[in-house]
Amino acid sequence: MPNPTAAMLVIGDEILSGRTRDANMHYLAGELTKHGIDLKEVRIVSDDAPAIVAAVRALSAAYDHLFTSGGIGPTHDDITADCIAEAFDAHLDVRADARAILQAHYDTQGLELNEARLRMARIPEGAVLIDNPVSAAPGFTLGNVHVMAGVPMIFQAMVASVMPTLTGGQPMLSQTLRVQRGEGEIAAPLRQLAETYDDLTVGCYPFQKDGVFGANIVIRGHDGARIDAAMTDLARELGQ
Amino acid sequence: MPNPTAAMLVIGDEILSGRTRDANMHYLAGELTKHGIDLKEVRIVSDDAPAIVAAVRALSAAYDHLFTSGGIGPTHDDITADCIAEAFDAHLDVRADARAILQAHYDTQGLELNEARLRMARIPEGAVLIDNPVSAAPGFTLGNVHVMAGVPMIFQAMVASVMPTLTGGQPMLSQTLRVQRGEGEIAAPLRQLAETYDDLTVGCYPFQKDGVFGANIVIRGHDGARIDAAMTDLARELGQ
Repeated sequence: MPNPTAAMLVIGDEILSGRTRDANMHYLAGELTKHGIDLKEVRIVSDDAPAIVAAVRALSAAYDHLFTSGGIGPTHDDITADCIAEAFDAHLDVRADARAILQAHYDTQGLELNEARLRMARIPEGAVLIDNPVSAAPGFTLGNVHVMAGVPMIFQAMVASVMPTLTGGQPMLSQTLRVQRGEGEIAAPLRQLAETYDDLTVGCYPFQKDGVFGANIVIRGHDGARIDAAMTDLARELGQ
Repeated sequence: MPNPTAAMLVIGDEILSGRTRDANMHYLAGELTKHGIDLKEVRIVSDDAPAIVAAVRALSAAYDHLFTSGGIGPTHDDITADCIAEAFDAHLDVRADARAILQAHYDTQGLELNEARLRMARIPEGAVLIDNPVSAAPGFTLGNVHVMAGVPMIFQAMVASVMPTLTGGQPMLSQTLRVQRGEGEIAAPLRQLAETYDDLTVGCYPFQKDGVFGANIVIRGHDGARIDAAMTDLARELGQ
């Protein structure tokens, strides 16, 4: 059986303006790979409702899971919950369970659960809350969409909450061979290898650093023994 | 007149598997912002021809410019040129101008322009070459699509070649106010500010580090005097 598939939607002007360098995509990619869920596509859109709604609809329909990052805080530019509700035609309002979590959190801190903070208790009908051990305000899962915060520390904690609830597939395994030869020299044997081992993927990633150039050849697949065999063939072929 | 719009398409399994952290998106975002071109959307897809072709068609139709990164090297997994040609129904073959550039480069190095390397001279009919001062093999512009290498050093050099050929708009200006207060406390005045200055965008980006928490408030727009005015109002309102 093939692995489940996933997409990610990163929401935020600050990424597209170059102000902030996204960290969540790289983190989620690694976690999904370990869990045997294949990340197939990522999109990054700005804090623009029609763009978010369109991307949520397209990606949740095309893949088994969609993970979103960003736009669930208390300020006016946090519109992700509204967009998810709109995409699925779900009712959105302050929910008692989410409100109770926030109330307890702010009571402990001696802070008021004001109108802005209460925005974070607006959860679409039918959604399951995602635990936020860092700052309380929950994420949520609606259908196959997992809605999480953009702040990396909170995003990572939410991924840790969600991941055990998902059925994974076979973890993707990989081995890397680093060669100090140009891609153009090794392209022919690599193509041959990819054809022989068509159940694996063979990637070639050139590097050039401090006057040294070469490539990392990465063989990926679900069967460790097959990867071993391919790597042995490759090393022999390249005389390594 | 509104600024020109742009999208970016990052092509590569290595990003989606979590092996490599993309660097080109953040770089391009910063360069476009300086140049007055608004980056509206980024997509990342794997080395999969139908996915690449579909994304190229969708993004080149929706925005003024599309920038692609990755998949133009000499190995079997480099299929970007093929996909661009297919997306625009353009003929693809080794082109004399690109071949001459590669021939001169490999002659200098005493290396053979073999079949694999010659793949990098395959350029769609009608495309304009993009100069590659790092490793010779050119990128190309076809219609509104700028096709560039994935290796960051080469990508950046190609961006430097392309950018002066594009008509920019008004550079996006921004000012940031860092406050050590929770988002929930400042959300109401921020919303008010965003409504008063509806020609600017007001973003709020929380941070939490070493026990200190707060937010960076970023005001963006094209008119420096307006941003000054909004920032003055904000600082007064927050008592900073």
